Amino acid sequence: MKEVRIGLIGTGYIGKAHAIAYAQAPTVFNLRGRLVREMVAEVTPELAAERAHAFGFNRSTGDWRALVADPAIDVVDICSPNHLHKEMALEAIRHGKHVYSEKPLALNAHDAREMVDAAKRAGVNTLVGFNYMKNPTAQLAKEIIARGEIGEVIHFYGTHNEDYMADPLSPIHWHCFKETAGLGALGDLAAHIVNMAQYLVGEIEQVCGDLKIVVPARPTKGGSSEMIAVENEDQAHAMVRFAGGAQGVIETSRVACGRKMGLSYVITGTKGAISFTQERMAELKLYLHDDPVNRQGFRTLLVGPAHPDYAAFCMGAGHGIGFNDQKTVEVRDLVDGIAADAPMWPDFEEGWKVSRVLDAIALSHLQGRWLNVNDIV
Amino acid sequence: MKEVRIGLIGTGYIGKAHAIAYAQAPTVFNLRGRLVREMVAEVTPELAAERAHAFGFNRSTGDWRALVADPAIDVVDICSPNHLHKEMALEAIRHGKHVYSEKPLALNAHDAREMVDAAKRAGVNTLVGFNYMKNPTAQLAKEIIARGEIGEVIHFYGTHNEDYMADPLSPIHWHCFKETAGLGALGDLAAHIVNMAQYLVGEIEQVCGDLKIVVPARPTKGGSSEMIAVENEDQAHAMVRFAGGAQGVIETSRVACGRKMGLSYVITGTKGAISFTQERMAELKLYLHDDPVNRQGFRTLLVGPAHPDYAAFCMGAGHGIGFNDQKTVEVRDLVDGIAADAPMWPDFEEGWKVSRVLDAIALSHLQGRWLNVNDIV
Amino acid sequence: MKEVRIGLIGTGYIGKAHAIAYAQAPTVFNLRGRLVREMVAEVTPELAAERAHAFGFNRSTGDWRALVADPAIDVVDICSPNHLHKEMALEAIRHGKHVYSEKPLALNAHDAREMVDAAKRAGVNTLVGFNYMKNPTAQLAKEIIARGEIGEVIHFYGTHNEDYMADPLSPIHWHCFKETAGLGALGDLAAHIVNMAQYLVGEIEQVCGDLKIVVPARPTKGGSSEMIAVENEDQAHAMVRFAGGAQGVIETSRVACGRKMGLSYVITGTKGAISFTQERMAELKLYLHDDPVNRQGFRTLLVGPAHPDYAAFCMGAGHGIGFNDQKTVEVRDLVDGIAADAPMWPDFEEGWKVSRVLDAIALSHLQGRWLNVNDIV
Amino acid sequence: MKEVRIGLIGTGYIGKAHAIAYAQAPTVFNLRGRLVREMVAEVTPELAAERAHAFGFNRSTGDWRALVADPAIDVVDICSPNHLHKEMALEAIRHGKHVYSEKPLALNAHDAREMVDAAKRAGVNTLVGFNYMKNPTAQLAKEIIARGEIGEVIHFYGTHNEDYMADPLSPIHWHCFKETAGLGALGDLAAHIVNMAQYLVGEIEQVCGDLKIVVPARPTKGGSSEMIAVENEDQAHAMVRFAGGAQGVIETSRVACGRKMGLSYVITGTKGAISFTQERMAELKLYLHDDPVNRQGFRTLLVGPAHPDYAAFCMGAGHGIGFNDQKTVEVRDLVDGIAADAPMWPDFEEGWKVSRVLDAIALSHLQGRWLNVNDIV
Repeated sequence: MKEVRIGLIGTGYIGKAHAIAYAQAPTVFNLRGRLVREMVAEVTPELAAERAHAFGFNRSTGDWRALVADPAIDVVDICSPNHLHKEMALEAIRHGKHVYSEKPLALNAHDAREMVDAAKRAGVNTLVGFNYMKNPTAQLAKEIIARGEIGEVIHFYGTHNEDYMADPLSPIHWHCFKETAGLGALGDLAAHIVNMAQYLVGEIEQVCGDLKIVVPARPTKGGSSEMIAVENEDQAHAMVRFAGGAQGVIETSRVACGRKMGLSYVITGTKGAISFTQERMAELKLYLHDDPVNRQGFRTLLVGPAHPDYAAFCMGAGHGIGFNDQKTVEVRDLVDGIAADAPMWPDFEEGWKVSRVLDAIALSHLQGRWLNVNDIV
Repeated sequence: MKEVRIGLIGTGYIGKAHAIAYAQAPTVFNLRGRLVREMVAEVTPELAAERAHAFGFNRSTGDWRALVADPAIDVVDICSPNHLHKEMALEAIRHGKHVYSEKPLALNAHDAREMVDAAKRAGVNTLVGFNYMKNPTAQLAKEIIARGEIGEVIHFYGTHNEDYMADPLSPIHWHCFKETAGLGALGDLAAHIVNMAQYLVGEIEQVCGDLKIVVPARPTKGGSSEMIAVENEDQAHAMVRFAGGAQGVIETSRVACGRKMGLSYVITGTKGAISFTQERMAELKLYLHDDPVNRQGFRTLLVGPAHPDYAAFCMGAGHGIGFNDQKTVEVRDLVDGIAADAPMWPDFEEGWKVSRVLDAIALSHLQGRWLNVNDIV
Repeated sequence: MKEVRIGLIGTGYIGKAHAIAYAQAPTVFNLRGRLVREMVAEVTPELAAERAHAFGFNRSTGDWRALVADPAIDVVDICSPNHLHKEMALEAIRHGKHVYSEKPLALNAHDAREMVDAAKRAGVNTLVGFNYMKNPTAQLAKEIIARGEIGEVIHFYGTHNEDYMADPLSPIHWHCFKETAGLGALGDLAAHIVNMAQYLVGEIEQVCGDLKIVVPARPTKGGSSEMIAVENEDQAHAMVRFAGGAQGVIETSRVACGRKMGLSYVITGTKGAISFTQERMAELKLYLHDDPVNRQGFRTLLVGPAHPDYAAFCMGAGHGIGFNDQKTVEVRDLVDGIAADAPMWPDFEEGWKVSRVLDAIALSHLQGRWLNVNDIV
Repeated sequence: MKEVRIGLIGTGYIGKAHAIAYAQAPTVFNLRGRLVREMVAEVTPELAAERAHAFGFNRSTGDWRALVADPAIDVVDICSPNHLHKEMALEAIRHGKHVYSEKPLALNAHDAREMVDAAKRAGVNTLVGFNYMKNPTAQLAKEIIARGEIGEVIHFYGTHNEDYMADPLSPIHWHCFKETAGLGALGDLAAHIVNMAQYLVGEIEQVCGDLKIVVPARPTKGGSSEMIAVENEDQAHAMVRFAGGAQGVIETSRVACGRKMGLSYVITGTKGAISFTQERMAELKLYLHDDPVNRQGFRTLLVGPAHPDYAAFCMGAGHGIGFNDQKTVEVRDLVDGIAADAPMWPDFEEGWKVSRVLDAIALSHLQGRWLNVNDIV
């Protein structure tokens, strides 16, 4: 069985989620390749060594360039801050590595396109960490739509709202600067819901957005009275039009009091509707217009072994899946894809398409009008 | 005690709701005037007589002009189809009557303005039937916001979606024609959520909308194969900006499968949030950011006697209020207002403001850009 | 059209609900008799006169005996405290009046039986105010069960929990004494859920209960330090067995923090299930086992014109019904029944059956064993 | 760091959950011992080898007696069918192994007691797989109660209902026979909710139960017309009394249509209430009576890093935890306990106490009366 040797760069919040997924994936799924947790890179050799030990990796390094150049690495997994994605990915590609990058793929669509092209030229496979679409409930939604059970989709309302910066005194961090994060809530959060929209409904062709910085300046650190300006949007929304004709609205915020994991969608079709929120990630609501009129109502489907990818986790319906489980499905796709040398999805191309939509939303705000996504270069 | 003698024009769906409210209001509330169910007008004398009997009115007529001219009428209550509101209201005003009109006030803002001006010149009082804001839960939301409990409002998401025309074979009716209805879902449904937005968050200053006819033609009658073109939007949404600085999104649809009474709102503030759907009209969800971080969560408030206007219906909390009860609150405002010769709210001026927002949304769609609501004449 | 002239005794909490129902019923429904709000009795002539005026009744009296003897009264409606039901009903029956009594019918089954027998001998019709079963959702549940849609019922879990006495310092009142109330939460609240159980599942044959006084003594009045002993149960539950073979559990409490109107039931059948709570009185959840396994889930049915007795209130589904609306359905049954001189349901016989179940629960607690309901005399 | 070498017997449904937990626990938590997946036992050497490979274990055997005797095993993990627990545990204890057993500990309390005594005599540590109490939400409920936030607990309503045998034609299996399973739904499901009740509210002292076989016979296999009698209860409920004075009701069913993972509880205290269902395993509802009366309501707490044991899985609140995650907390307790040679909980003693309650419920049904749990030997 072919080995799939992972080199992980970055071990923070999302890096740990990757590590947990690597740990459990071979037991959960019958993988097509032998997953090897080979090397961890962090900002210092000490931290790298500590995390390699904690995450069950064989080796570690304080220099990510050593990792991407290492001959015993098949896949470079990029979990670093956003502004480093591009340089690391390009360097990995230069060494012929497959690349698995966290979202957003880059700080803007232009950079993302450069990465897509580099990967294509090098003939390496790519995957972007849009893990919410790997949730069995999202796959179930996709299946329902694809089978025509809700008819033709006519409307999409999607959000990714959280409140992690709702407190105006919570300190500034790299997400708030253009140089390190590019966009604000759009890049950090809306990337997921835009990907979800395109996964479920198809490509977004036109957008018209409105962005706002709600908290203009934040303390340099907790308790400090020194304030620094926030450079990108705290909240934004956009009207969108899909290639298939459906209308949509996308909302995002990092200051939405009360929303802890507010990725949600309501999809309306000509014969039914679907409703979902990630805060109840193991259930999907489904309405079928053809039910008898006096027995119509949204059904609460609890995800179970009759639905995609659930049975590997548990044979009992409704027993629940968690955040790291959807990352584990993603890792399954990674290992199977690399082992078979087959394309994976969502790849860098999709990552670029998402970036393009986000950039178009931001630009349409500046111009106060609708934009064609294709016009973003 | 001063008499408040009602002349009701129109006894369909909403006319009956008015009649029920008239019937129960004097028992529910301690009204400041003596409500008299004086006269009903309908399209024929026979129908008028039948309905006057059923609704407990003293007299009836097959000619609405007789009703508005009748000296024993204090208030003309207009429950006729939309395109008749203007003519009837102007004629009633001409006879010095107070006017209580169903929404939308007119087919467009221009007509609505004419009605406002006429009422002002005549010195009569007016009220528009935006009954959802009379719901105790809506009043509770207003109170929470006014007291600053959720801080400064930064975002409003509101919908009025229903599925009463979701079936593409459901026959055409007057709501689908410009001449009889003006706008489609915007006029019939969104009028309510725009009023609610302005009630709770303040005036809408700028809008950018997108409208769509989803079902281009419908049968002339049930089972018929003869099709007639639908002339106005089945679904629409808009981005809006409030005078106070908040951003917002408004959605509306008459073809939203699964939504039976989808007037809903999520209001996000700097210190909390409120969430509501009319399908659970007796509960309001409230999130307070200042709760201890490990005890934060949306509270489900069941409306009760500690909240506005509930105690008159029932002394037990959570026992439930219904659609006609909010109409009864509206009738209380009507009778008290007329008896005291005091202004009521929402008056024709607010009805005009709502129409202006709706017209601006429709026009912004045609122009593909943001519009100032003030630019609508 | 035959007149149905009402004499109302008692105008407190529930008396006002009756008055509201009388006010709106003729407009809501096409009644088979002409409802006349004839006379109100209260403890003083002044209070009676004031309430008669407020409730739209023609006459009033400070002596209930005058009311039950009045020749212009067809129906005596008893909304007085529980311990007066029996005497008033017997006196009304003696005068040949039909009787509409609030629940519980009497302080115990023995007294209730006496009332049943008196009514039968006199040939008068009777109705007991178990209004929750008049809710269109309850009627819908009944219809679903009767049609076999959830198969054979195998389990019933029902509650009527509230928290109106949850505060240990809330003052004592007549509900807490055996002489004035008989049972505690069982009589005041569980009467409703026992009636509902019998309406939906059939007669209860055997019971085994457990009762508890949670707050042993309460202040004589608000703020007082003088305490008086509570004489009846604050909370209770019982296992029950239905004649049809189903098992069940009944719970009740007046000290259940957080429950404002906690009448709820979960009914499990061999082919489906139903779930309901009165706190969301306009929706019923329905699960059908025969749905495809990957599309199974509880449906949230919003009550609408396709369901029993809703269309009279509103032609739009999901627009909501309230507490007084179910009382209005009850009044419709009353007026139609009296006008047609036909039996009504739930009648005194059912009121007695409910009392018998409640008494059996209390007695089974004392004896620490199962009891046959039939053994209660 | 001390090694904790696991020997796993049984690799079915729950065995795989254990394997997943072993795989991810060292990455999720900073364990106090080095977890070694040492050996798997299954019914044949081939199956054992296959599963050892799939689950990442070093060795395998077709003979569980070899596993329990193996000197390189520290903990024997028993995931076999219920009737084998006792023999395997006793044999493991005889070899001085610590034992981690799935629930129910044994087929009856008598056997469980024998296991407790053997473990005590041998001085080995024990743990029973009541994983639902390891859910961060359950720990949060415990914390809320322990801090007195809902006052003194006065009522507990708990269920463990599923519908995995709701179809009367689903074939018979070992759960249905006394010899292989002992009790039916009580042993398979109610064991969890009884443990949860005792974890959250304290020991159950008295019980009075009612049991029922709903489907008397089932096919020998799918599609077969040969039927075999079901020997134990499909559904049951019981009234219980806790040592601390609270009353309670416990329900269980394996034929409860619509319930996929219906472990739920409502805990009422003198100052608040808690409500939970495992179908929404990442949220807990909390009501605090001391909130202002017009702002009272159940709060929906989404479990997050401010709550017990969540942060190790994810630093974002509300991102969701799954079924295997609670098993991972259990494995953390196991490894930390064994590494520190410290007692773990719930141990065999608690397993016996649970069995005693279940046996008492079954016996009380036969005797038709209340029983003291202590009277079960």
